[in-house]
Amino acid sequence: MSGSNPTACILVIGNEVLSGRTQDANVQYLARRLGELGIPVREVRIIPDIAETIITTVNEVRARYDHVFTTGGIGPTHDDITSECVAAAIGVPWVPHPVVWARMRAHYGDERFNPARQRMATMPQGATLIDNGEMLTPGFSIANVHVMAGVPAIMRLMFEALASALPRGAPVVSRSLHAHGLREGDLAEGLEHIQSRYPALDIGSYPYFRETGPGVAIVAKGVEPAAAEAAIAEVAALFRGLGVEPVLGEPK
Amino acid sequence: MSGSNPTACILVIGNEVLSGRTQDANVQYLARRLGELGIPVREVRIIPDIAETIITTVNEVRARYDHVFTTGGIGPTHDDITSECVAAAIGVPWVPHPVVWARMRAHYGDERFNPARQRMATMPQGATLIDNGEMLTPGFSIANVHVMAGVPAIMRLMFEALASALPRGAPVVSRSLHAHGLREGDLAEGLEHIQSRYPALDIGSYPYFRETGPGVAIVAKGVEPAAAEAAIAEVAALFRGLGVEPVLGEPK
Repeated sequence: MSGSNPTACILVIGNEVLSGRTQDANVQYLARRLGELGIPVREVRIIPDIAETIITTVNEVRARYDHVFTTGGIGPTHDDITSECVAAAIGVPWVPHPVVWARMRAHYGDERFNPARQRMATMPQGATLIDNGEMLTPGFSIANVHVMAGVPAIMRLMFEALASALPRGAPVVSRSLHAHGLREGDLAEGLEHIQSRYPALDIGSYPYFRETGPGVAIVAKGVEPAAAEAAIAEVAALFRGLGVEPVLGEPK
Repeated sequence: MSGSNPTACILVIGNEVLSGRTQDANVQYLARRLGELGIPVREVRIIPDIAETIITTVNEVRARYDHVFTTGGIGPTHDDITSECVAAAIGVPWVPHPVVWARMRAHYGDERFNPARQRMATMPQGATLIDNGEMLTPGFSIANVHVMAGVPAIMRLMFEALASALPRGAPVVSRSLHAHGLREGDLAEGLEHIQSRYPALDIGSYPYFRETGPGVAIVAKGVEPAAAEAAIAEVAALFRGLGVEPVLGEPK
């Protein structure tokens, strides 16, 4: 779809998502924003707070993708081990970051800047802060790994602080239409022919079900807006040939 | 946490989740239900509709975990390639399933039972249907891979049709408490000591933020309810020692 664009992998680190306690709220935000920046997400992994698993997985995916974005595991408690695991994966020491250390000590005072909080001021050597000047404890980037908080509001602040520094690819655009009263099985053959004529696009078909009956949404994604529009025009003709008037955009 | 329990991996297959178009709604449901059945989820991967990626990933995770649950990619359109990829991963032919084929042909009639719909009646040889007698096109299991729809309402029907047939482990139970007005950095050291006394439990710490200030929820998970309760009692004492009265359960 966008062969020359940089690629991304999201690593969600935390037992709470794997156990079903927490609904992940970061993947969709990151996937959408990274797509807008022309850095399409190619894979997401959700893994537990186990050091060996984190280290192995970070190295596996950072070799495969241009960027790795991690969420979760950078707080002060015993289950927050992302930072030291990323240091181990990259092969650098895990050391106090002078800027964050000073900022946190000033904020908490010597007594409350305890060992748990000191861990949050400890980062892989050579890390670049993901900071907006207002975060007490920022995220960081080291090599091609970007380490962010798991709490969605904080993750978003961090990502937006980072976004402007990321080298962008061609933005991925999408064009869509939908129609009520159609089933995928009736349009699949025609849609496959359209996909084959636009190999640079990803054309996706998404059925939906309402009280009043089924419908289908078609989304064409790629880096060429004109191609996406042409493909969607062909899908509209396909829908009309099946006796259904399509509506531009996604279903409400 | 539950070393003798069978383990699970969830494979979410679909460009729509990776692009951020769709918020995944299956992982949390499956993770919670599988935990209740004593089959804890150890990893989740979200991967695109690319045959080579699906085949490689299925084989990687099915070697590593006792069960693999896939969602998505079993409809009739060109981007629905999960079924044939699972056949290729397992190394068996992809063939018409006589029961599903007959059922779909009877439902659609010869003319509308077109090649696209015939693909939905084609499955890895030797597949066992995931069926409740009311689904036109069921999911299936082959070896340790369970293939389900991506549409959440249909996925849930399929999972519940499958659940009673899964060999269970000891159910994973959880006990929790929370308190308003505490920060993780103040309790991290005490909490780590409690975790070290209960190595068979996973004790997680989850900060939350409300308009009225911060709070922390602590969750102890494991297969022994008595251990989880004892650990949570120790956490309650830790909170009281910090001058905060804990409330049992998760925050509302």
